[in-house]
Amino acid sequence: MSRAVIGVCVIGAGRAGMIHAGNFATAIPGACLAGLADPSQTAIKAAQARLPGAKAYADYRQALEDKQVNAVVVATPTQFHRQITIEAAQAGKHVLCEKPMAVNAGECQEMIAAADKHGVKLQIGFMRRFDAGFIAAKSRIELGQIGQVVLVKSLTHGPNVPKPWMYDIRKSNGPLAEVSSHDIDTLRWFTESEFEEVYAIAGNYRCEDARAQYPDFYDNFVMTVRLANGMQGLICGAQGVGYAYDARLEVLGTRGILLAGDLRQDSVTVCASGMDLTSSAVKSWWDLFAPAYACEARGFIDCIRADREPVVTGFDGLQAVKVVNAGNRSIVERRPVRLD
Amino acid sequence: MSRAVIGVCVIGAGRAGMIHAGNFATAIPGACLAGLADPSQTAIKAAQARLPGAKAYADYRQALEDKQVNAVVVATPTQFHRQITIEAAQAGKHVLCEKPMAVNAGECQEMIAAADKHGVKLQIGFMRRFDAGFIAAKSRIELGQIGQVVLVKSLTHGPNVPKPWMYDIRKSNGPLAEVSSHDIDTLRWFTESEFEEVYAIAGNYRCEDARAQYPDFYDNFVMTVRLANGMQGLICGAQGVGYAYDARLEVLGTRGILLAGDLRQDSVTVCASGMDLTSSAVKSWWDLFAPAYACEARGFIDCIRADREPVVTGFDGLQAVKVVNAGNRSIVERRPVRLD
Amino acid sequence: MSRAVIGVCVIGAGRAGMIHAGNFATAIPGACLAGLADPSQTAIKAAQARLPGAKAYADYRQALEDKQVNAVVVATPTQFHRQITIEAAQAGKHVLCEKPMAVNAGECQEMIAAADKHGVKLQIGFMRRFDAGFIAAKSRIELGQIGQVVLVKSLTHGPNVPKPWMYDIRKSNGPLAEVSSHDIDTLRWFTESEFEEVYAIAGNYRCEDARAQYPDFYDNFVMTVRLANGMQGLICGAQGVGYAYDARLEVLGTRGILLAGDLRQDSVTVCASGMDLTSSAVKSWWDLFAPAYACEARGFIDCIRADREPVVTGFDGLQAVKVVNAGNRSIVERRPVRLD
Amino acid sequence: MSRAVIGVCVIGAGRAGMIHAGNFATAIPGACLAGLADPSQTAIKAAQARLPGAKAYADYRQALEDKQVNAVVVATPTQFHRQITIEAAQAGKHVLCEKPMAVNAGECQEMIAAADKHGVKLQIGFMRRFDAGFIAAKSRIELGQIGQVVLVKSLTHGPNVPKPWMYDIRKSNGPLAEVSSHDIDTLRWFTESEFEEVYAIAGNYRCEDARAQYPDFYDNFVMTVRLANGMQGLICGAQGVGYAYDARLEVLGTRGILLAGDLRQDSVTVCASGMDLTSSAVKSWWDLFAPAYACEARGFIDCIRADREPVVTGFDGLQAVKVVNAGNRSIVERRPVRLD
Repeated sequence: MSRAVIGVCVIGAGRAGMIHAGNFATAIPGACLAGLADPSQTAIKAAQARLPGAKAYADYRQALEDKQVNAVVVATPTQFHRQITIEAAQAGKHVLCEKPMAVNAGECQEMIAAADKHGVKLQIGFMRRFDAGFIAAKSRIELGQIGQVVLVKSLTHGPNVPKPWMYDIRKSNGPLAEVSSHDIDTLRWFTESEFEEVYAIAGNYRCEDARAQYPDFYDNFVMTVRLANGMQGLICGAQGVGYAYDARLEVLGTRGILLAGDLRQDSVTVCASGMDLTSSAVKSWWDLFAPAYACEARGFIDCIRADREPVVTGFDGLQAVKVVNAGNRSIVERRPVRLD
Repeated sequence: MSRAVIGVCVIGAGRAGMIHAGNFATAIPGACLAGLADPSQTAIKAAQARLPGAKAYADYRQALEDKQVNAVVVATPTQFHRQITIEAAQAGKHVLCEKPMAVNAGECQEMIAAADKHGVKLQIGFMRRFDAGFIAAKSRIELGQIGQVVLVKSLTHGPNVPKPWMYDIRKSNGPLAEVSSHDIDTLRWFTESEFEEVYAIAGNYRCEDARAQYPDFYDNFVMTVRLANGMQGLICGAQGVGYAYDARLEVLGTRGILLAGDLRQDSVTVCASGMDLTSSAVKSWWDLFAPAYACEARGFIDCIRADREPVVTGFDGLQAVKVVNAGNRSIVERRPVRLD
Repeated sequence: MSRAVIGVCVIGAGRAGMIHAGNFATAIPGACLAGLADPSQTAIKAAQARLPGAKAYADYRQALEDKQVNAVVVATPTQFHRQITIEAAQAGKHVLCEKPMAVNAGECQEMIAAADKHGVKLQIGFMRRFDAGFIAAKSRIELGQIGQVVLVKSLTHGPNVPKPWMYDIRKSNGPLAEVSSHDIDTLRWFTESEFEEVYAIAGNYRCEDARAQYPDFYDNFVMTVRLANGMQGLICGAQGVGYAYDARLEVLGTRGILLAGDLRQDSVTVCASGMDLTSSAVKSWWDLFAPAYACEARGFIDCIRADREPVVTGFDGLQAVKVVNAGNRSIVERRPVRLD
Repeated sequence: MSRAVIGVCVIGAGRAGMIHAGNFATAIPGACLAGLADPSQTAIKAAQARLPGAKAYADYRQALEDKQVNAVVVATPTQFHRQITIEAAQAGKHVLCEKPMAVNAGECQEMIAAADKHGVKLQIGFMRRFDAGFIAAKSRIELGQIGQVVLVKSLTHGPNVPKPWMYDIRKSNGPLAEVSSHDIDTLRWFTESEFEEVYAIAGNYRCEDARAQYPDFYDNFVMTVRLANGMQGLICGAQGVGYAYDARLEVLGTRGILLAGDLRQDSVTVCASGMDLTSSAVKSWWDLFAPAYACEARGFIDCIRADREPVVTGFDGLQAVKVVNAGNRSIVERRPVRLD
């Protein structure tokens, strides 16, 4: 590929979309923000206030027709990922698709097939793979600092209550998909294995308003994992916890343990007359992972320029979706569920 | 009861027994060490070297006949707990019995019945209930600092490889009993509920020499718990980890989280030219819980003197044994197991 | 010396005295609490409520005549240390004297001479020398983990406002004596050197009520130290800080640094909806150093039994008093002051 | 001023210069990297390898004549700051000058006068004023969380041994200037006061090779500070410590304390069989303060665009230089030195 600047259009101007847009607008060598697509005029206006001069498309199809656009970031609600990704591939645009990749395995396979057929890159937004702390952790394990991996535990607790559209588990796939897709990918990354069987328990402890209409909705779950290579895994997820954005990793080996993640927002501690030590907690994933999103964007541009495999592929996205669905089945059927 | 000093005989002069003996010898107001019973002459000699002048009994039955002995601590291998406890009760001696209480629920019930019948106290050695850190944690939760309890996670990783007699799970009940009886009791304490159903996965990752003869032996497990009151629980246990004695608690509530336990042995950190920060890790449970053992002993004497219920009863011991057995069944049968 | 139990009388039933009394009453092998001496009937009654059956003397001279008393702990206000120590030595009683040893160097020398003449032990109450954390720190430095020592910084901030009798610096020697005698001893211990020159700045920031009558009083100071062996030292002291009992040590070497001390009372952290992480701070020196006081008492009994030099001698007490006086002179004269 | 992009030329392509160049090249809205000036061809080539396409000037005077250049960053050795800043002002270019501002107060005053006369902005490179952690700390203090400020302690220990040109204190002003200019500025910022008097002790503990020729050189110092408003200050500085880049702040108030800074590079901790807990330490200031440098650059562009006072002015640079010189005099003359 030539050294020309790669124009990236961000589809979906919500919170995640705006992080991507901000990065491509200023911080990614060899790329520029070609535009933003969102059907909501309000969202577009808010986006342009933050990124003055950014081009806007009311319909993402206009962006797909634009020659200035070489790649897209798909940051819409999950249910639209499949359609947009396939159309983008058909239009010859590379795709960075946010997680979860899609609603089920079939959709993921269609997306992978479309990217293959049209020769575009398809990267999935598991940006923790680009996070310096997670990379340092992986590297220490590869150096053998804790012996052989025995058990990988990954936890994500989100501060905010779910949005009402997430209450219908059949549509949203629930917190397993919305919150813990990242944890699933982390387990695959750190065990270097696929999942063999999962068992999950779940309940709704914080969302009173969902109880009557959506008795299946859960906001807290624990899922144990048998990995195909014999290792053990554990994922804990929660929404609406209020106290922080809490993402921690613990890897137990045959002769050591690794702990990663920190609830502290910064290095400031105050101790005052009430005799309590107080620090600020991490308020949001976009603070915590801001550098990881920038590295993810650089990685996406690099794989396009160098014409190589993305660090996180469609297959990674597909495998996570399969686990989400198996976990949700385990919750409902109250039994361990094997992955195919 | 009169203000006379209560003579306590420690039965079993192993590591746990010697902690109890040391406490009753010097640190427990209103009590004294009446003697030590152990069939091993070597153990008795080692004990007397550390506690000069301590009276020794080769057979615990001699102690049970001794008028100077008002109470016993049962710190033998688990398989002898039932017999000794029942005989002690018959002899009118109060009993502080180490964990696990016994090998199965039936034994526990016999022990409880004997204590009831003969009007002696029966306290089980869940000394974490007397630990200042755990008590502070419980108190903060009762104050509502994290809202309603949703999920209690308790973890114990022991540094040492299991002793060969533990390899036969049918006899030892495995790490669930040896290591995690404490965690089971902690979950009951913090959820204020009984267990409803457990699901556990387990494997042997560190004990090569046990594999051929004891294919069922495991040194690492993860167990999810449905509590009867709807809360969730999680217990992780490991043996032979080498890196530290690691005991941590995490309680997630509807609007906060509580973390307790620290891998650091002391408050000293060194950072030197290799550019690593280094602290010492906790080496053993007897360092970590030394003050808890002393408080446990005081609690035992207090309940005898004041003729009141012990803080940790035979029923608490019984319930933990039931959970151990259900967990072990889940491991073998690869399915969730309900508690009766 | 025979194996007979050493009877210890505690003189001064204030806070420090009661810690010593509690230890000798239960926890020190080879010793017992022979009694408590205090001119205040109120103090004696409170003491006996906590230590039922403890013998009491209204006048310490009665204790010095008692054959059951083999040793005394001097825990009175500083101004009485000299007189009581000398009389105790004359009566053939060993002395554990609280810090600061006395008001000036002359008094210290008289006390040392008296102990020498009458062949009794004189130990000074720098219990940090018996603290496991400080000992671990010293040991790491001796192992060369930070290279050669360059700078030792010791800090003590006390939560409580000074008692009114401390306002007159000429009598109390101020926070340098009351709070930081320990820090001075720590610097001597960790540098293995005497002080050569000190420079201190000080001010009264928290004690409004002392300002008019005691313009020289200070509740906050910083003192830089040139050690005789060329190392550097720094002591920071404060009273009335309210937030915690804060005692920390930092040792900078040629190729590393060691940090010791922790503001946290226990290992429990709570994070709740306000998105702050909160732990309890250390509330008092008697909590923080409780095990050190017990070890100090054991060390005192050991040096009597084995007829050897105490770990902390009268000379250590004397040197600290000299530094206190030089520091106070530096504050008043606003210049560096050399030690003789 | 118009909305046109501000072209910034970085003068001095050393480590600090390249941080600035990298920021202006990609991350600062409304600015671009107009070029790099350095007399060393090697430095220029290395710079262009990292920033492909960057324009280069062998002589900074060429940059000052370039219409594309609206502002310069002065990141040369300190001795050239005065000359370049004055010429840049004469050429109508805004200046962001690295710390220390200059070698003495007279130079600083000339620089301030030149900027005033020619109506250009002069900002000094105290980027800690733009660091999120320091800002959070300042904000908590302003909220009164620790009461009134009593004592501000700032510490900077650099890992690397000084470069040989720094050995001559008369030229380099030593570690007080090279390392602790930042700490001086931090004390002025947090006390909101000027310095009244300083007293410093210093020594050379790590740089054997400097001892013979430069007996005045020091690599470790402690400086106590009386602030004009009655507060206390303390600065500790060291070079060649090897163990980390260590920058910590401690602010003691009338009823609380604030601690900021962390030796940990990331949130990863490993505990393995040796029973030590290990984390990576911060290796360099450019890692630790990377976001602060970007914010500093944004602040510089903002003050140009909005035609307002920079956050850090020439006066701030001047005051720090005065303190550096007073501290160095105190070291030599072994007495407290008053600021004019």
